[in-house]
Amino acid sequence: MSTLVLGRNEVSALLAMPDVIRVVEEAFIAWKQGRASMPPKSYLVVERGDFRAMPAAVPGAAGVKWVNVHTQNPAMGLPTVMAVYILSDPDTAYPLALMDATEITAYRTAAAAAVASRYLARRNSRTLGIVGAGKQARYQVLAHAELFQIAEVRAFDCSPAAVDALAAALAGMSVRACSAEEAAASDIVCTLTPSHEPVLKHEWVKAGTHINAVGADAPGKQELDPEILKQALVVVDDIRQAGAAGEINVPVSTGLFRVEDVYADLGELITGARPGRTGDGQITVFDSTGVAIEDVAVARLVYDRARESGRHLTVDLV
Amino acid sequence: MSTLVLGRNEVSALLAMPDVIRVVEEAFIAWKQGRASMPPKSYLVVERGDFRAMPAAVPGAAGVKWVNVHTQNPAMGLPTVMAVYILSDPDTAYPLALMDATEITAYRTAAAAAVASRYLARRNSRTLGIVGAGKQARYQVLAHAELFQIAEVRAFDCSPAAVDALAAALAGMSVRACSAEEAAASDIVCTLTPSHEPVLKHEWVKAGTHINAVGADAPGKQELDPEILKQALVVVDDIRQAGAAGEINVPVSTGLFRVEDVYADLGELITGARPGRTGDGQITVFDSTGVAIEDVAVARLVYDRARESGRHLTVDLV
Repeated sequence: MSTLVLGRNEVSALLAMPDVIRVVEEAFIAWKQGRASMPPKSYLVVERGDFRAMPAAVPGAAGVKWVNVHTQNPAMGLPTVMAVYILSDPDTAYPLALMDATEITAYRTAAAAAVASRYLARRNSRTLGIVGAGKQARYQVLAHAELFQIAEVRAFDCSPAAVDALAAALAGMSVRACSAEEAAASDIVCTLTPSHEPVLKHEWVKAGTHINAVGADAPGKQELDPEILKQALVVVDDIRQAGAAGEINVPVSTGLFRVEDVYADLGELITGARPGRTGDGQITVFDSTGVAIEDVAVARLVYDRARESGRHLTVDLV
Repeated sequence: MSTLVLGRNEVSALLAMPDVIRVVEEAFIAWKQGRASMPPKSYLVVERGDFRAMPAAVPGAAGVKWVNVHTQNPAMGLPTVMAVYILSDPDTAYPLALMDATEITAYRTAAAAAVASRYLARRNSRTLGIVGAGKQARYQVLAHAELFQIAEVRAFDCSPAAVDALAAALAGMSVRACSAEEAAASDIVCTLTPSHEPVLKHEWVKAGTHINAVGADAPGKQELDPEILKQALVVVDDIRQAGAAGEINVPVSTGLFRVEDVYADLGELITGARPGRTGDGQITVFDSTGVAIEDVAVARLVYDRARESGRHLTVDLV
């Protein structure tokens, strides 16, 4: 037996958004059925950043993602976030693969938001607003384009170069630079910023809008005016993580929103335990914190694809 | 930049017990000085076993160990426990190395017990008792032989073949098969079993003995008659882990021993915050649960040795 080693380029070549959407959805179903598990993330804080260990298991796969946030990295020519995955056979614990998980993280985050949009956005949604046009933005557009007939992407970023880069990466799609207010007036809005202050004002959001609030992933971060949450049907990926570190964490801590006000988690929508959008006038919000079952499901997908392709390095690890 | 990949054979060739003892001791010092950290282990339970993610940082290194216990593995020709390490640069989070950590775990466990013996056993200890002569036994003997003039190893195991294998692995040392009672009558005793019932009786233990209780690492496991603990100076590696899953966990849960009865942790002995053994008649116990700062310190050692040796595989991982 041997262990596959897959670098970022290999992983990137093996991933395709439709597959990722499928396995992310399956992971949530397995979780709601008690066939998947994830203990809480553990945080390791160091002088210049932090690391998170994210273990999880779904049927056929167990593993851990080791991912960091080091905000001073770009000045040294390194990404702020890097991720590595150890994928194990759940039945024997044999390490099946070691792989870069930076691309996995980008894909699964976008896939989960698109799945949320499937249940929460209006079916005929045609405009996609992007607030924060960094790297995650292109994955969000690709994921949503799989599930919706997106006619126009309206992108805002405080750096115009970021919007230009997004448009260049999405050749063939209509990407228009605009203000945050214009982006917010889209059918589906994805907020993808590292903000600690609301970037989306309540008065900008039309009836019928669905918002994927993706940026907030740590205590103190928020992107939405809390008034939006108070008016919206709010769905989370994991209620434990959302209350502590997701979009709702700040309004929960200040008393403007309660954890009990959350309508459902994504797994409940996917399994049909609760309905998603029930009317065209609702405002809906998906609070995405990023969960470990998404990672393990996509890591397993990458492993299967790598074995099929035969293009991979193997080592005698253990 | 690239990432080193080190399999079990490479790691094994790079490890030397004196170095491991040194870096394990340094890790405990750093921890007591607030320069190291380790959040609690997180457990992922699957159908046929469990996994633990053990993140930690010491000066110059951060990382996570992914280690399992799958008791049905031997029937399939696989080890019960396998471990993999991701070692990162703490300042940038760049993944420095991916490596097998099964040998690292074996070495660091023995090194920590030998360090405990340095502070807790009588200086002139000459006999080393082994109760449970599995794979860890040989590492315990090698580690103790670095710090003590061991004249005789007295080994008990319910499988005589295990004692024969230990003797064969330690050619040149005097290893004598004996009963558990005879092993317990040694100057230093290491209990290395997966027992859920005491294997060491109170009346077997002489005044002046030091015991390293290494086997208990999960709730419900224990190796010592609780009367031994009540009479002994008890030192732990990590008070949080010991109370929950170490040798003291069962007597703590039944009220026969209290967490407050623990005398000190190993770091306090190493840094001199508390004295170790103060008289030849004391019975002393080190409750070893295995801590993540040991792993990260040894993983860094392996990485440094691999870079010096130049014998390693590198990949473009992230």
